[in-house]
Amino acid sequence: MKLYDFTLAPNPRRVRIFLAEKGVEVPMEQVNTREGAQFQPEFLAVNARGTVPTLVLDDGTVLTESVAICRYFEETHPEPSLFGRTATQRAVIENWNRRAEIEGMTSVSDALRNTLPMFAERGLVGAPDGVPQIAALAERGKAMLERWLGHLDARLATTRFLAGETFSIADITAYISFETAKRLEYEVSANYPNVVRWLGEIAARPSSSA
Amino acid sequence: MKLYDFTLAPNPRRVRIFLAEKGVEVPMEQVNTREGAQFQPEFLAVNARGTVPTLVLDDGTVLTESVAICRYFEETHPEPSLFGRTATQRAVIENWNRRAEIEGMTSVSDALRNTLPMFAERGLVGAPDGVPQIAALAERGKAMLERWLGHLDARLATTRFLAGETFSIADITAYISFETAKRLEYEVSANYPNVVRWLGEIAARPSSSA
Repeated sequence: MKLYDFTLAPNPRRVRIFLAEKGVEVPMEQVNTREGAQFQPEFLAVNARGTVPTLVLDDGTVLTESVAICRYFEETHPEPSLFGRTATQRAVIENWNRRAEIEGMTSVSDALRNTLPMFAERGLVGAPDGVPQIAALAERGKAMLERWLGHLDARLATTRFLAGETFSIADITAYISFETAKRLEYEVSANYPNVVRWLGEIAARPSSSA
Repeated sequence: MKLYDFTLAPNPRRVRIFLAEKGVEVPMEQVNTREGAQFQPEFLAVNARGTVPTLVLDDGTVLTESVAICRYFEETHPEPSLFGRTATQRAVIENWNRRAEIEGMTSVSDALRNTLPMFAERGLVGAPDGVPQIAALAERGKAMLERWLGHLDARLATTRFLAGETFSIADITAYISFETAKRLEYEVSANYPNVVRWLGEIAARPSSSA
């Protein structure tokens, strides 16, 4: 088994935090996406989209999606559960993980990739031959991030974590979206006190340094 | 339990096909998104983003994401399995379902919502107060759809279904993306023979009429 990782990229960090919460260690290889290593022939032969994280299992199975990689480890290392145990818990965690992706990560990614000079011809992840930036999409991403903060703050007024009283993968996804937003010099404002409370709690977990 | 549905919208159809494959019947209520019913106060009180499908469980739990709704029914009605049984199967299905969403559904949705006059101020789903269309994003969506077809055709040259030899939720997601693309008068070309073969097989299943 090998996990292709890059310490400075947000999606690989989602997996590293997940593994830290599980106490699982996996052999890793760095793919420096700031130097274009993900678009070299050796790595494209593993993952044609050139994205990290990528997990290769011993039987040759290749997983290219962060949550699919996490699900593999949830199945093989069930404790502590980060995807839920009952039908309702599993559905609620899936629901909030997806909202954290669709409303949170996508908004931040749209804003970041269509703004920063380092992504000038890489407005979309997973496109080895390049995609131009779209300025209007960056603006839309910023507006959608504020909307997400409103929804998230209302949710966290009633629950300790995104999916209820127990930490889950949904918290990892949402946390990483705000960590990523720092690259836009964006800080969550005091207008969202429940999000600020929750961010402090997640940042205090040992896994957050992964 | 109640499932808020709309027969003409793509994401509710993903859930209806999933339920048809399971042989499960659920009480449904139509929310006519072409007449703006999803943005009426009664429905926004259930789901503040105004999206369908939405499932409300008997205990009041609200699920607003198609795959979270499907996962609930997978847990409560395990046969036939559409999310996989072993750790590797579950991870591979998650992987291809996500690729079908990220590379397929998102590409089609970007193209459709930023092109059709009926979405003039609704360039993004789940935004009750409106989002302008971005013409460049529609073009990017069309380009990304071709890229996805290349990846999918290569995959389906080696497997019967997206995630292997067994039909799964990943096939439903990918099928619906191409069904939705028909609204752009888009048909999958013979340049992708494996996709054409697979599309015919999915369309022949009784569930496809759901």
